[in-house]
Amino acid sequence: MAMREVDLVRRIRQLAEAQPPNQSILTGIGDDCAVIRPPADREMVFTTDFVIENRHFESATHKAADVGHKALARSLSDLAAMGAKPLFCLVSLAVPSKLGNAWVAGFYRGLLELATHHGVTLAGGDLASTYIIVADVMCCGTVAPGMAMLRSAARPGDHIYVTGELGGSALGFELRRGPAWMRHLRPQPRIELGIALAEEGIAACMDLSDGLSLDLQRLCVESKVSAHLTGVLPIANDASYQQALHGGEDYELLFTTPKPMPAEIAGARVTAIGEIVEGLPSEVMWKGKPLPAMGFDHFRDV
Amino acid sequence: MAMREVDLVRRIRQLAEAQPPNQSILTGIGDDCAVIRPPADREMVFTTDFVIENRHFESATHKAADVGHKALARSLSDLAAMGAKPLFCLVSLAVPSKLGNAWVAGFYRGLLELATHHGVTLAGGDLASTYIIVADVMCCGTVAPGMAMLRSAARPGDHIYVTGELGGSALGFELRRGPAWMRHLRPQPRIELGIALAEEGIAACMDLSDGLSLDLQRLCVESKVSAHLTGVLPIANDASYQQALHGGEDYELLFTTPKPMPAEIAGARVTAIGEIVEGLPSEVMWKGKPLPAMGFDHFRDV
Repeated sequence: MAMREVDLVRRIRQLAEAQPPNQSILTGIGDDCAVIRPPADREMVFTTDFVIENRHFESATHKAADVGHKALARSLSDLAAMGAKPLFCLVSLAVPSKLGNAWVAGFYRGLLELATHHGVTLAGGDLASTYIIVADVMCCGTVAPGMAMLRSAARPGDHIYVTGELGGSALGFELRRGPAWMRHLRPQPRIELGIALAEEGIAACMDLSDGLSLDLQRLCVESKVSAHLTGVLPIANDASYQQALHGGEDYELLFTTPKPMPAEIAGARVTAIGEIVEGLPSEVMWKGKPLPAMGFDHFRDV
Repeated sequence: MAMREVDLVRRIRQLAEAQPPNQSILTGIGDDCAVIRPPADREMVFTTDFVIENRHFESATHKAADVGHKALARSLSDLAAMGAKPLFCLVSLAVPSKLGNAWVAGFYRGLLELATHHGVTLAGGDLASTYIIVADVMCCGTVAPGMAMLRSAARPGDHIYVTGELGGSALGFELRRGPAWMRHLRPQPRIELGIALAEEGIAACMDLSDGLSLDLQRLCVESKVSAHLTGVLPIANDASYQQALHGGEDYELLFTTPKPMPAEIAGARVTAIGEIVEGLPSEVMWKGKPLPAMGFDHFRDV
């Protein structure tokens, strides 16, 4: 069915206007820009993430609502890594016009279900037609001044922790069925947990989107430290060590702190997996040997 | 040449760190999110715009730096339409890996030249590989509280004005040479002019990205009014009436106000082209006859 931009925008706007009111949004969809009243006594954090057909998902396995969910979940996971409370998002979506209005509406339904759950208002975006599906979701959140958790704040002597379990998404991607597949298909950003960690005073955190080995290396680079992993990992049911070490898209949080942590925070399992040490920035040791960073790099295999 | 994401990010970060310091940016490129200190006593405006290969530009005619310039210019033009002062941007870029590092560096050079000119700090973004070039630029600016110019603020009795001249970009697209082509290739967002209009107290404004006939219709829809054009248009040298009425990408400003305006504001020509009247929302009359909205609709011809 042929689409017209004006009809699509009207439909998306109706869906957005059905969201709960947000007093920070002075002007939402329908103008050249969204107008936002900045929250008093907070800093603001901003992230943007692509979800691209055949890179981040396949149309054969992902319905429109799954793609919408994942597009927002990726950005929300970055907010969680800072300890931020979500505020609003802008959504850019390019689709082949043959997909039709129903696909676009399904995408926004999936996205808005997750958005409303986490208090994120859809405040604007862009629409275009192209040959493959490309979504880019910009998400804004707020944190108490000076309390944003950073990749650069890990210090020698810190314990390294991960939340939840690792490897489940990679296992799901392999199996294409069962709870592991649902975990891959519908990742749940750790928003409440991130906020709880920031309130605990945790300084260094990032989310695990491209695999522990690559993401921990990135944290070490930014903090100019090395990491020693002990060999203990919270591995998802039936997943392998390889999947837990290198598999992407678990969207758990990786954080470091000199304080010992309880085994559970905000309902999530928290596991100590190693220690930050002085050394070559970027070096990650696994059971005493250098761990190659084998997580997902967009430009390595293409 | 094969690209690695880490090398690309490092190169982009070096380019961004060569920009003038911006005290609002507490954490820029390199973390999960950018951290921003909101400006005191200002509202914030946000926009995001795609620039997609074979939709918004062609690789045969647009060098990497031209694409980078255009990607930011489109978003900055939306800021200009609100009367906002630019603050920072996030840039999402997906490219075929065969393009190589030089293309990506050229894109960011073109983008950052325009960014630095307008005081916009590159604070983050995303990188991915795909089959065609897709850029999505999110731009944030600030306005005095209550002073953002809106599409919805046009009132019956307002004069309709446009800045500069119309049709030049469409002519350039046809000719592919001369000053009109440069105008198409390197659009200049009307930032200073937009700020001056907001300070004048202008309430209703939008930028002309998809052509006067379609964009004025959009303004009328949001303001629930009709528009009567007089037949007078500031037409670019050698451009046709059709190009001035329906050609996109002039990135001039369209605004309405009950006050008579001087012939020049902030160095730009300002021309009265008609009047806002009560009537069917969305109707635009040209010399007494309905003007079809023939500007660019992403989903009409595909």
